Amino acid sequence: MLSKNQKKLIASMAQKKQRDSHGLFLAEGPKIINELLDAGFTPHLLAGTSEWKAPGRQNYETLVLSPAELSSASLLKTPQQVLALFRQPTHTLNNDAIKEDLTLVLDGIQDPGNLGTIIRMADWFGIKKLICSKDTVDAFNPKVVQATMGALARVQLFYTDLDSFLPACKKDHHLPVYGAFLEGDNIYTSSLKTPALLVMGNEGRGIRPTTSQHLTQRLTIPSFPPQSSGSESLNVGVATAIICAEFRRQQGFS
Amino acid sequence: MLSKNQKKLIASMAQKKQRDSHGLFLAEGPKIINELLDAGFTPHLLAGTSEWKAPGRQNYETLVLSPAELSSASLLKTPQQVLALFRQPTHTLNNDAIKEDLTLVLDGIQDPGNLGTIIRMADWFGIKKLICSKDTVDAFNPKVVQATMGALARVQLFYTDLDSFLPACKKDHHLPVYGAFLEGDNIYTSSLKTPALLVMGNEGRGIRPTTSQHLTQRLTIPSFPPQSSGSESLNVGVATAIICAEFRRQQGFS
Repeated sequence: MLSKNQKKLIASMAQKKQRDSHGLFLAEGPKIINELLDAGFTPHLLAGTSEWKAPGRQNYETLVLSPAELSSASLLKTPQQVLALFRQPTHTLNNDAIKEDLTLVLDGIQDPGNLGTIIRMADWFGIKKLICSKDTVDAFNPKVVQATMGALARVQLFYTDLDSFLPACKKDHHLPVYGAFLEGDNIYTSSLKTPALLVMGNEGRGIRPTTSQHLTQRLTIPSFPPQSSGSESLNVGVATAIICAEFRRQQGFS
Repeated sequence: MLSKNQKKLIASMAQKKQRDSHGLFLAEGPKIINELLDAGFTPHLLAGTSEWKAPGRQNYETLVLSPAELSSASLLKTPQQVLALFRQPTHTLNNDAIKEDLTLVLDGIQDPGNLGTIIRMADWFGIKKLICSKDTVDAFNPKVVQATMGALARVQLFYTDLDSFLPACKKDHHLPVYGAFLEGDNIYTSSLKTPALLVMGNEGRGIRPTTSQHLTQRLTIPSFPPQSSGSESLNVGVATAIICAEFRRQQGFS
């Protein structure tokens, strides 16, 4: 059974201010929680129905809830057996790690579903670090956590000032800094180098002018047939995935 | 001003049964509504605030609403100047049209956001027809309509029984029928032919066994580095986009 304070704490996880002041975040469902536990995340609170069987989870104290109690505590429309509060990890951004592989840079992504999709896709393509502008949606927003499907256990996110970060990266490591635009060089006819940084912009306004001045090349996904007048844009999660896939194709399969 | 009946009709558009019985669907926001009007969709009702300026829309009678009236009628959290009811188009599926290009086949996609993303992406890549199993989420669900960002004006969707459709297509047109799986042939080392059909499965269970028996080749998006143990899967919208992009790359840029 959950105490009144525990219920309040869970409900407060919808707000960034509360998440940050407690240093916690909420995850729901067996899949995500198991992946976070496997990755070494520390549970502050673990509570599930008797239905929840967690093999090898004896080390963690689990509160047993009735389905009605879980429902009332859950932030999901369809609660899924178990919920947990985890401590937010505190990674230190090591600029040296950047110089070894493809790193994604997000300039103001606002939609939690889009960020979740991007984290999940980054995990698939072995991208371990995401650098986010300070106004990018918080990775510990419950909607982001759920959309990552557990990938948050393996991908690290850093929130920083891109106007300091990008020039420092270019200066120290001489990395190419690519950016995605509606007009730019065709990703299929460009030679995409790694290590590199790839900047993706906000859903509505794209990459900020102050950010774009740090880029070394503008890239675009060609529509089909070429020069067709169809959709004006792709969803940013989809665009990020197509470009990352092309980086990996050129690295591994061409 | 909206009558009580008009308000009721708008609210009823959240339900498939009501959309079908009236033959209507709801769209909200200037961008989507302009694209649908441009594509020749017939508005049954058009209502916006005085803020809504629609160049060349004199032909359509527009009800002027106060922002409060628009808010109360809108199904969006953040209403956008204008909403409209349109007649659902009735296309006839011409099997001959299938034999000319890449056609997407959706086997039980459930999430409205995913279907919207797929329609928008199809439009970008010049895919004009989507064939959906009967249990795929309805394209005129307001959440799908909004997520297409207007691409619904150019992409046609057909709901049909895949167990009749796929064998007929194979028999009549000898088309390759590709399907996306977690295990299959690498899309980057396979020669992807067009015209073809590409089948994408449901978010949780993938392609149904009854559907997969009609396939000619199983495809997979390789994770990176190859054989890495990362994310177990990609979001279906993202996976569809990566595979369609690769079809178009092989057609146009290789």
